[in-house]
Amino acid sequence: MEDNIIEEKEVKPRNRDNFLIKQRAFVKLYLLTWIEQGRPYGKEMLEDFYKTFKHFNYKPNHSEVYKGLHELLEDGIITRSRIIKEGSKRKELKVYEIANMDEARRYKKQVKEDLDRSIGLLNKAVRDNF
Amino acid sequence: MEDNIIEEKEVKPRNRDNFLIKQRAFVKLYLLTWIEQGRPYGKEMLEDFYKTFKHFNYKPNHSEVYKGLHELLEDGIITRSRIIKEGSKRKELKVYEIANMDEARRYKKQVKEDLDRSIGLLNKAVRDNF
Repeated sequence: MEDNIIEEKEVKPRNRDNFLIKQRAFVKLYLLTWIEQGRPYGKEMLEDFYKTFKHFNYKPNHSEVYKGLHELLEDGIITRSRIIKEGSKRKELKVYEIANMDEARRYKKQVKEDLDRSIGLLNKAVRDNF
Repeated sequence: MEDNIIEEKEVKPRNRDNFLIKQRAFVKLYLLTWIEQGRPYGKEMLEDFYKTFKHFNYKPNHSEVYKGLHELLEDGIITRSRIIKEGSKRKELKVYEIANMDEARRYKKQVKEDLDRSIGLLNKAVRDNF
């Protein structure tokens, strides 16, 4: 029993105890779906999170959203372009697109499994304790 | 088994981003239910966690369980006694009981709300993304 705990620490650093789905994966799932749907701007997506989860009293930290975008970029699942708007005030916009649809699907499938596992874990807690 | 718990009073707000229910609350919920049901031994409860969640590939860290017991003790919701078994090898057992049933119920009700909110958040993610 004690041995297992030590082993897990070494082998699985990211999600050591495997409790519920991590916020980063949850955020990246929404980012991918929104980019697929053609909502390309990072800033808008942050506001979309606020609107989407207002009812749940959940508000992802803005750095969580930008780290999510960064990881998807690093993994080659999305790409980013810059649009320079010329006008009275020059403005730069960052635009995200899916770069690798197969990888995007694979990632979403993996997150779905963790979502289902998490929902099962929480429903079990309701059944067992109430 | 000694519970050498380093006292760490959490200064930060409990659930800053308010994502999903925290593992500590989840663990304390099960501890309370098991103590109510007359499973009084800390060590057995740790093993109960392993058995209960084996299917979900979730294994709470043993310090998480002992910190949960410690917090319930500190809040006066449970009490601990020691039983000294005399025999060939003297053995000490720690036994937990509910001390304040009203507080136990109040705490469980509060955890239930956070469980329901968390389940709603995860179900929404499934609906929105798949």
